[in-house]
Amino acid sequence: MRLKDIGEIALVKRLAKRIRVDSSVIKGIGDDAAVIRWTRTKHLLFTCDMLIEDVHFKLRQITPYQIGWKALGRNISDIAAMGGVPRYALISIGISPNLSTFFLDGIYKGMAGLAKTFGINMVGGDMARSDKLVIDVSMIGEVERDNLALRSGARVGDVILITGSIGGSIKGKHLKFIPRLKEARMLVKDFKINSMIDISDGLTVDLWRILDASKVGALLYENMIPLSKEADSFKKAISEGEDFELLFTMGLNEARRFFKTRLAKMDTPVALIGKIVRKRQGYKVIRNDGKKRSLRGEGYLHF
Amino acid sequence: MRLKDIGEIALVKRLAKRIRVDSSVIKGIGDDAAVIRWTRTKHLLFTCDMLIEDVHFKLRQITPYQIGWKALGRNISDIAAMGGVPRYALISIGISPNLSTFFLDGIYKGMAGLAKTFGINMVGGDMARSDKLVIDVSMIGEVERDNLALRSGARVGDVILITGSIGGSIKGKHLKFIPRLKEARMLVKDFKINSMIDISDGLTVDLWRILDASKVGALLYENMIPLSKEADSFKKAISEGEDFELLFTMGLNEARRFFKTRLAKMDTPVALIGKIVRKRQGYKVIRNDGKKRSLRGEGYLHF
Repeated sequence: MRLKDIGEIALVKRLAKRIRVDSSVIKGIGDDAAVIRWTRTKHLLFTCDMLIEDVHFKLRQITPYQIGWKALGRNISDIAAMGGVPRYALISIGISPNLSTFFLDGIYKGMAGLAKTFGINMVGGDMARSDKLVIDVSMIGEVERDNLALRSGARVGDVILITGSIGGSIKGKHLKFIPRLKEARMLVKDFKINSMIDISDGLTVDLWRILDASKVGALLYENMIPLSKEADSFKKAISEGEDFELLFTMGLNEARRFFKTRLAKMDTPVALIGKIVRKRQGYKVIRNDGKKRSLRGEGYLHF
Repeated sequence: MRLKDIGEIALVKRLAKRIRVDSSVIKGIGDDAAVIRWTRTKHLLFTCDMLIEDVHFKLRQITPYQIGWKALGRNISDIAAMGGVPRYALISIGISPNLSTFFLDGIYKGMAGLAKTFGINMVGGDMARSDKLVIDVSMIGEVERDNLALRSGARVGDVILITGSIGGSIKGKHLKFIPRLKEARMLVKDFKINSMIDISDGLTVDLWRILDASKVGALLYENMIPLSKEADSFKKAISEGEDFELLFTMGLNEARRFFKTRLAKMDTPVALIGKIVRKRQGYKVIRNDGKKRSLRGEGYLHF
C-alpha cells in the first residue's frame, strides 16, 4: 500500500499507536504541540513544522522575508493554540548553494521580525544542500498547568468560537498573518477554555480534530461563520486552510461572560459559530437554505 | 554573492552575529546543541539535524531502518557531546506519497530501536509531501550544570582525546553507529572535561571548531590517531566525517587519572592524540615522516 492510499490522518494514528512514551509525557502525538511535565508549575511545549518549496509555496510567488515569517509564524500559532508562550526556536534549512546570500538573509530577517515581536530566542539550527528549499522550525514553549488547552477537552453543551474570519488566505494573508498569541493568552488566563486548536488545514478538518480527540459531535451554522472578504465561497472557506485563526470551545455561561465583559475591548473579533453535541448526533452544518448537511474530516491534507 | 561562495562556517557566523537572545540562553548558535537555563540544577539542551536524500544518503544504498537509525543517532550524538541526556524527539518528514507504508514503517522502526535503547520519547512531528526524502529530527535533552561540556572550554596544556577510531565510516559504520552517550556521561560525571564535540564533519574541521571557540591552537600526532580498518588513508580519515566519535580535551593530570583508573574498565577505547597549544602556535599535525604540517578547518561542508 502506498502512503497516498492510506491518508495523512490514518498514517499519523498508525505511527502513534506503536510509539511508547514515559509518564513525563502528558500529551505526545495528536495535538498542536507535545506537552511535557517539567516543573511543578509549568509544562514544556514542543512542536515543529516543515515548509517545502512547491508544496507549501512557490519561489516566484513569495519573498524570502515572507518564507521566514510564515515558517516561524506557524509554530507560534501552534504554541498559542495550546495556551502557551513560545520561547526558543531552531531552524533547519535545506537550500540550494546557487541561491544568493541576500535570499538567505531575507529568510532570517522575516523570522527575526516575528521573533522580536513575540520575544522568541532563535538559538541554532542546521543547514544542508537541497535542490528544493526546505525549512523546518522546531519550537519550545511553556504553559502554566492551569492554562493548558488541549484538543481533547470539548464537552457536550460547549459553544464553538473562532477568532477573525476564514477563507481566501491563499490570496495573501497566509504570508503575513499575525499569530493569535495575544488573544490565546488572554483567553486561557481569564476564561476557562475547554479545547483549542489553530486552523491550519481548514475549519472542517481542524474542528474534526477537536471532535475526534474529545469524542463528541458538532453543529455549525453557516450564517454565523465569518468569511474574509477574500473568500470565494463558504465551501472553499471552510476547507482551504492556512487561516491561522484560533478555534476553541467553552461552556455556555463562560461564553456569556466573555461576550459581556471582554469582546468589546478586543482588537480581534470573536464569533460564536456553533455548538458541541453528542458524538452520535454527528458533525453537521445548517446551511443558509435551512438544510442540514454532514461534514467530514476533510481539507487540505498532504497524502 | 552565492551561498556556495561564502561557505558554511562563514554563513553560520554571519547569521549568528545578528541574532539577539535573552539571558536565559547560555549558549545559542555555535555548539552541538543550544543550552538554556531552565531549573536551578539542570540546563535544557536543544538541537536539530536534517538528512536529505542524495545529499546525506542515496535511497538505493540504505534501508529505511538505517535512515531512521541515523537520523535519530546524529541528534543523540549531539546531546552526548554536551555531556547531557537525550529525552524528547520530534520528527519532521518530507516524503513521496508514492512510497509504500512499509518504507515509512521501516524509518520509524529504526528510530524506535535507538529511542528504546536510550530512553528517548518520540512525542510528535510533522509530515509533508516531498519528491526527495527529507528527515529533520529535533531533540530536547538535559544536563546537570556541572556536567555541561562546551566547545569553548579547551585550555593550553590540555591533552586531546578521542573515542574509538576514525575513517572509512562511509563504508557502513555511519548507518549503524551507536552514539557515544554512555561514554560521554561517564566522562562528564567522573572527570573534568574541558571541551567536547562529536565528530560529524571530520576530525580536522571538528577539532578546529573547538580551537576556534576556545581561541587556542593544537598539535596532533599522526602515529597516535587510531584509524578504523575501513580507513583508506590518514588524510581521508581525518577529513571524511560521519565518525560520530567523541573528541574532547582535559587537563594532563585529569587525563593521567583517567588512563590509570578507568580506561581498562571501558568497552570503548580512548586514545590521546595531541595537545592544546597557544593560538599563535597554530593548528598542526606531526606526520609519521617527522614533518610538521599545518591543518585547516576543512572537511565535508555543505557549501
